[in-house]
Amino acid sequence: MAPRNAAALVIGNEILSGKIQEGNMVFLARELRELGVALERIVVVPDDVEVIARDVLELSRAYDAVFTSGGVGPTHDDVTVEAVARAFGRRVVRDPTMEGLIRAFYGTRLTEGHLKMADVPEGVRLVSSEEVRWPTMVVENVYLFPGIPEIFRAKFPVVRERFRQAPWHLRMIFTNLDEGVLKAPLDRVVGRFPAVQIGSYPKLTDPEYRVKLTLEGKDRAQVDQATAALLAELPPEEIVRVE
Amino acid sequence: MAPRNAAALVIGNEILSGKIQEGNMVFLARELRELGVALERIVVVPDDVEVIARDVLELSRAYDAVFTSGGVGPTHDDVTVEAVARAFGRRVVRDPTMEGLIRAFYGTRLTEGHLKMADVPEGVRLVSSEEVRWPTMVVENVYLFPGIPEIFRAKFPVVRERFRQAPWHLRMIFTNLDEGVLKAPLDRVVGRFPAVQIGSYPKLTDPEYRVKLTLEGKDRAQVDQATAALLAELPPEEIVRVE
Repeated sequence: MAPRNAAALVIGNEILSGKIQEGNMVFLARELRELGVALERIVVVPDDVEVIARDVLELSRAYDAVFTSGGVGPTHDDVTVEAVARAFGRRVVRDPTMEGLIRAFYGTRLTEGHLKMADVPEGVRLVSSEEVRWPTMVVENVYLFPGIPEIFRAKFPVVRERFRQAPWHLRMIFTNLDEGVLKAPLDRVVGRFPAVQIGSYPKLTDPEYRVKLTLEGKDRAQVDQATAALLAELPPEEIVRVE
Repeated sequence: MAPRNAAALVIGNEILSGKIQEGNMVFLARELRELGVALERIVVVPDDVEVIARDVLELSRAYDAVFTSGGVGPTHDDVTVEAVARAFGRRVVRDPTMEGLIRAFYGTRLTEGHLKMADVPEGVRLVSSEEVRWPTMVVENVYLFPGIPEIFRAKFPVVRERFRQAPWHLRMIFTNLDEGVLKAPLDRVVGRFPAVQIGSYPKLTDPEYRVKLTLEGKDRAQVDQATAALLAELPPEEIVRVE
């Protein structure tokens, strides 16, 4: 069965120290949402093999799928492969398929450093496609992705369709009311539609509206009914638009 | 003693579902770095009071300071105050100072919804300044900040100087070498300078350089020595610049 929920583990001192703005999670969140998978937790940790191993194991047990981002290059600060191996009590071994790809790519420029990128947790599954020949490592339910956003985005399509689920249905109400006024009508509707996730997002400086209300769920009829119920609670002149 | 390390808890379905790109962590990471505090973990969770309470407690025990971002408005999906109270076994009570501020601000437009923003974990410390009168809630070592980036940034300066530590010293080497080639020289230098954090960050599409190396530590002499040692390992013609 395709995964119903997922977690992500972002690895990198450069993110925790503010040198680089994390760039993969909003992409992953949107992709998983579109696929119908609930991303339920994101954890950002340093390049510390013990910490990563512990988090990989915890997330792997708690969620259907785990995506790691970062730490898969050849240098000393790239410890994700070792950490994932340790999480599952596996050895790190050199994979002949990946070694072949690396040797073909680097040719006479090849160093032992380049070959480190052929080291994988024992028993890894390597997933690639015609379009994306460099494989993605999968260990148990953990998918290892690189931190560089261009490569993360290029590789994700190779595994995307494994995650296809029933889709979410989303309606949005844009209103000029503030949250203090919206609270009571929201409370009445939230209680009646437990299968619909209702969110309220104020915007400070938008000239068009003050609060965006979102209604989401896998049952379209329930979402539409909750939207109608909420609209019935609000003064029509304060509704900017409904999507 | 000022906190030496910190963690952050980001609360919001809207981030996990990709509706909104998280906007506070890169700011917080940079501020804490500049202050000399190590941000060691970021966790992103849904608007779920049980999940938030458990994470607040875990992070509060493991780190000197914890920053929460999000979930402090008046609507049903704002559950951070209740969760922080639950984490520490406290009740939620209405604070007279905050109630006074809210009544003064909303005047005749006041609703019970607005007043919910005066509800605080019992025993909270309220921190404000001349410039930022709306208080920041502090419970044990947990600092509650709003998710809206403009307000997060406006409120942070009120607590900033509580976190001032010995600063980090950062040097950077920009090079045209790739990571496979850099691995061996890096390994030699990393081993000699355990007090210096050394990072290697490839850039795919930058015309100026291929890899940025960063060397950081609280001991400036060690950082400078490690930088010199690493430069001595690299062919000068492959160094783009040093900062």
